[in-house]
Amino acid sequence: MKAELPISPDCVGPVIPKVAHFTAPLQLRSSAILPDYRLVYETYGELNAARSNAVLVCHALNASHHVAGWYADDPKDLGWWDNMVGPGKPLDTDRFFVIGINNIGGCHGSTGPSSIDPATGRPYGASFPVVTVEDWVAAQVRLADLLGIDRFCAVMGGSLGAMQALQWTIDQPKRVAHAIVIAGAPKLSTQNIAFNEVARQAIISDPDFHAGDYYAHGTVPRRGLRIARMIGHITYLSDDAMMERFGRVLRADDFRFHFDVDFEVESYLRYQGEKFAEYFDANTYLRITRALDYFDPAMKHGGNLTRAFQAAEASFLVVSFTSDWRFSPARSREIVKALLDNKRNVTYAEIDAPHGHDAFLLDDAHYHELVRAYFLRLAADISHGRTA
Amino acid sequence: MKAELPISPDCVGPVIPKVAHFTAPLQLRSSAILPDYRLVYETYGELNAARSNAVLVCHALNASHHVAGWYADDPKDLGWWDNMVGPGKPLDTDRFFVIGINNIGGCHGSTGPSSIDPATGRPYGASFPVVTVEDWVAAQVRLADLLGIDRFCAVMGGSLGAMQALQWTIDQPKRVAHAIVIAGAPKLSTQNIAFNEVARQAIISDPDFHAGDYYAHGTVPRRGLRIARMIGHITYLSDDAMMERFGRVLRADDFRFHFDVDFEVESYLRYQGEKFAEYFDANTYLRITRALDYFDPAMKHGGNLTRAFQAAEASFLVVSFTSDWRFSPARSREIVKALLDNKRNVTYAEIDAPHGHDAFLLDDAHYHELVRAYFLRLAADISHGRTA
Repeated sequence: MKAELPISPDCVGPVIPKVAHFTAPLQLRSSAILPDYRLVYETYGELNAARSNAVLVCHALNASHHVAGWYADDPKDLGWWDNMVGPGKPLDTDRFFVIGINNIGGCHGSTGPSSIDPATGRPYGASFPVVTVEDWVAAQVRLADLLGIDRFCAVMGGSLGAMQALQWTIDQPKRVAHAIVIAGAPKLSTQNIAFNEVARQAIISDPDFHAGDYYAHGTVPRRGLRIARMIGHITYLSDDAMMERFGRVLRADDFRFHFDVDFEVESYLRYQGEKFAEYFDANTYLRITRALDYFDPAMKHGGNLTRAFQAAEASFLVVSFTSDWRFSPARSREIVKALLDNKRNVTYAEIDAPHGHDAFLLDDAHYHELVRAYFLRLAADISHGRTA
Repeated sequence: MKAELPISPDCVGPVIPKVAHFTAPLQLRSSAILPDYRLVYETYGELNAARSNAVLVCHALNASHHVAGWYADDPKDLGWWDNMVGPGKPLDTDRFFVIGINNIGGCHGSTGPSSIDPATGRPYGASFPVVTVEDWVAAQVRLADLLGIDRFCAVMGGSLGAMQALQWTIDQPKRVAHAIVIAGAPKLSTQNIAFNEVARQAIISDPDFHAGDYYAHGTVPRRGLRIARMIGHITYLSDDAMMERFGRVLRADDFRFHFDVDFEVESYLRYQGEKFAEYFDANTYLRITRALDYFDPAMKHGGNLTRAFQAAEASFLVVSFTSDWRFSPARSREIVKALLDNKRNVTYAEIDAPHGHDAFLLDDAHYHELVRAYFLRLAADISHGRTA
């Protein structure tokens, strides 16, 4: 994060989160009902008169509604996709009306486990229901209604955000013209689930977790959150990227024959773990990883992904990264195959990037130029009154 | 583990561990000194008159001296490499005298952190020194002396065991004729170290760890050991092998919207974690992962692996497995390249196996036939009085 970024001309500048409150109960896939909920969101750019230039950006595991810009009281808190979204950026806020949203179950202001349950006056804690990608889409639909957006020009996301974009095309085929699906997968692999499970077990077995009701105990399961985050970081980076960045570089001249930090990579992981444990809610972590585990649109079609996308009407940009071993290009190709089977309009790009899964957050030139070109075409369609 | 295995004709049958006590102090690489130490070992087959048919089998992270056979009081406790070592097996105990050994720092009977420190009368605990692959080799050398073995026909191991075999050829070039190096690496990658670090942090941050002196507190850091083992298991298996074995199979008919076991793979990992926490010592886990991190024979040669093997005189069989993402075939090829640079006699095989790192413990036919053929040649050399 560079100090000069907030005042650069291609940043959306200072932003203020908004809050939408929905009082109609939301029936979740688990059959639990959320009596009411709050969604925190941000918007960048202007909605055009035809209301045809709206782009919804869905977040992945640990991000939020704060996609771009910065806060007046904390100029260093730059949006997580600020390199992608802004004036003249690939998703150009001079042309598009962009919405960032925090999902239900989250811990950045939308209703989640740390929110007060109106029925008890205490935080939901363990009683907050398990949420799914379908539930998130259903909650987002109401925000679209509120903002008067009948149809998104695009729904876009990376990783878990990509899964939400896919789910939109299935559940709301009339309301999304384009889905931009970056570093996604049609469902988690066994290994993906396994890593999630270890992270959850680290949290759940932390004595400070108190079966999810740690708010009442005045504790935070920091140990578990640290371990969860460290595991996550390893899977977000490629082996080569880690080797390139940290190698086997030592903090001292030689081994110190202890279990404190010897290697730079140990210091990095511990720092990332500490930082995460400071701000992230453990109950949210459990729920978001479960939403990942459960995402499997083909499941109700006997495992047939082609049939899962039968209802979809959107056009698609699908992007994968060669070094992503979490959601490898092969997983994106499964999606592309199923979409082509349904004669959907699909652009697929496999970006040769060394950074692993995290590449979707970085500003690789080929990747950004590709997204830029795709959005320029959408902008041209919009200005000609076409809506794909 | 099949019930009929212990009585099969190709099993070495009932075995009894032996103990060797060394009273001369052992100077460790850390500069710490172990005043005396005990090594537990087993032997299978007979040492020939020329003492030229001895094979040392080195263990990896969680194994031990119990390589083959079973115990009279526990016939189900089959040795960890029983499919490899026995009468008529690839390492044929009718032809070779095989030694299995538990390393110092271990928790299967050799002197380690849970042993009584003669200076205090209490378990060593946190005060047990950090041990390295070099230290293990030095300790093993004394056992060879005790058994009257001037020169091993072969030193053999998989994974961390492979690293010990390599170290023998560097530190004791005259005392090892062949090194059998299976699923090894010349040093850990950054990602390898990172996984070790997360496992260690899970143990160290467990409140029951008590800075390594949990014996005195009557506790066991089970939570940490469970997490460490779960992480380990994921890295031992290939993504495909996990998918093949567990897929996304659910315990119930549908998702249960909780954080208990939904997927079979969760059940498997929890079971493996529980089992491990029952018997493995946490201080040993810390030390063995550190020994892995520190193994880097090229380090004192400015990173030049070729120079690291300059002193080696052994012949080598190097084996890797295509689906091993922990120590991939590329890592074995680094070893092969450095050995060939030194004009060593090297046989290299990349086995097309789907199981990942764990393949070295399984009885893949191509793999076992290869090892068998190699040992048959050594047996022929021995019977002709040649010692390679």
